[in-house]
Amino acid sequence: MMQLKVIKIGGNVIDEEKKLHAFLVNFSAIEGFKILVHGGGKMATTIGDKLGITSQYINGRRITDAESLDLVTMVYGGLINKKVVAILQSIECNAIGLTGADGNSMLASKRPVKEIDYGYVGDIDQKGINQTLLKALLELKFVPVIAPLTHNGKGDMLNTNADTIAQKIAKAMANFMKVQLIYCFEKKGLLLDPNNEDTLIPNIGMDLYNDLKTKQIITGGMIPKLDNAFEAIENKVSAVMIGHADDLPDLIAGKAGTRIQ
Amino acid sequence: MMQLKVIKIGGNVIDEEKKLHAFLVNFSAIEGFKILVHGGGKMATTIGDKLGITSQYINGRRITDAESLDLVTMVYGGLINKKVVAILQSIECNAIGLTGADGNSMLASKRPVKEIDYGYVGDIDQKGINQTLLKALLELKFVPVIAPLTHNGKGDMLNTNADTIAQKIAKAMANFMKVQLIYCFEKKGLLLDPNNEDTLIPNIGMDLYNDLKTKQIITGGMIPKLDNAFEAIENKVSAVMIGHADDLPDLIAGKAGTRIQ
Repeated sequence: MMQLKVIKIGGNVIDEEKKLHAFLVNFSAIEGFKILVHGGGKMATTIGDKLGITSQYINGRRITDAESLDLVTMVYGGLINKKVVAILQSIECNAIGLTGADGNSMLASKRPVKEIDYGYVGDIDQKGINQTLLKALLELKFVPVIAPLTHNGKGDMLNTNADTIAQKIAKAMANFMKVQLIYCFEKKGLLLDPNNEDTLIPNIGMDLYNDLKTKQIITGGMIPKLDNAFEAIENKVSAVMIGHADDLPDLIAGKAGTRIQ
Repeated sequence: MMQLKVIKIGGNVIDEEKKLHAFLVNFSAIEGFKILVHGGGKMATTIGDKLGITSQYINGRRITDAESLDLVTMVYGGLINKKVVAILQSIECNAIGLTGADGNSMLASKRPVKEIDYGYVGDIDQKGINQTLLKALLELKFVPVIAPLTHNGKGDMLNTNADTIAQKIAKAMANFMKVQLIYCFEKKGLLLDPNNEDTLIPNIGMDLYNDLKTKQIITGGMIPKLDNAFEAIENKVSAVMIGHADDLPDLIAGKAGTRIQ
């Protein structure tokens, strides 16, 4: 069975040129099939401030009005995606940047308005991942570099969480490949004490996860990230790791970070 | 021999939502293999003004410093390219957006500094067009939508004229396909009097072109456009038309616009 690595990098890495370059050198060195999913970083907020587009957040999620949608389409789909692709091309990695609209790679639905109107935010249906396209690109020896943007098939781009995109892609590709999913961020992994890197939890199963949530040791943004990680491991993805972007080779080898069980 | 249509749309169409949509409906209806190349429009200048990035022009060409490069990468590669792709996806056209970095589709060299330093502007070498990639995408039934951005293979994006990109792609693909190249802009075609649409020149060869240049009837931005058109027709491209974006179906049928001979 062919093997695939789906790797997600978050904003903190993207925002720092040197860190990003070092990460991409490690990424380029990975052998075999691979897909990179990148987050948004703070650049959209910085540029939005200059343009007079105020970023509203509810529970850590950006409210995406029409202006903000244009902003993230520019910054995520243009500036960040092309910067990453151009760097990868310079270090022998045949990257091809994609948003969800490109080749209909990720079809989503605009999130229904309940208590909160998130605006142009897309929830990907599992069937929305175009595994035929991704497989074809991989077979042509391309490395897809995915921006956190989907589309609704009605002409609108939609802002979509990169952690969720990575999970959905990993699950879809697990139908015919052996998939390893790796979440890279700015910490060594899941920590018992978020301020102490020596408190790494090397393995976590659902029981421990629920226990740590109840005790409010795992809170905030880590919850959706871990929900995505568990969703993947419970759906044919063969390994899921969370760890520091600097540790990418060790994360792949299972020698660093937190393993989801 | 397989047939391919390479169609370029300019900024004036892109800047107006309704015109753009109408054009894309016509584009989507074209049968067979096709590639769309889009220009930049005024959006980069408008957004640049808000960001405090001043657009400098010499002889109608933008001077692209590092800030301006980020601006055009965002606007051309993100905002415009994804808007076009998302609309095409909504009208049954399986578009995939590409800058030159994506899949190494267009490799260019930073223009050497002579009298003028154009900054991050790329000149495409004919061998820089990745015909293997474009052919593979067409065979997979994708419709490439090309932004006016190339890369230098050293990690930098480069700003590149869309008319030239369309010409280079048409020439490269003419090695193994029968290629029609169509330049769409805001006039009926080449006009003897630019202010009178009734003075359309239906056919133009090199002799008439040189004559009209000498008489200063053809001036300014029309010269590089026509130079590109003649460059294509002299290098295996089977037909080159210049005309109004609204007339796309008639341009393809050879019933409107100016034919380069």
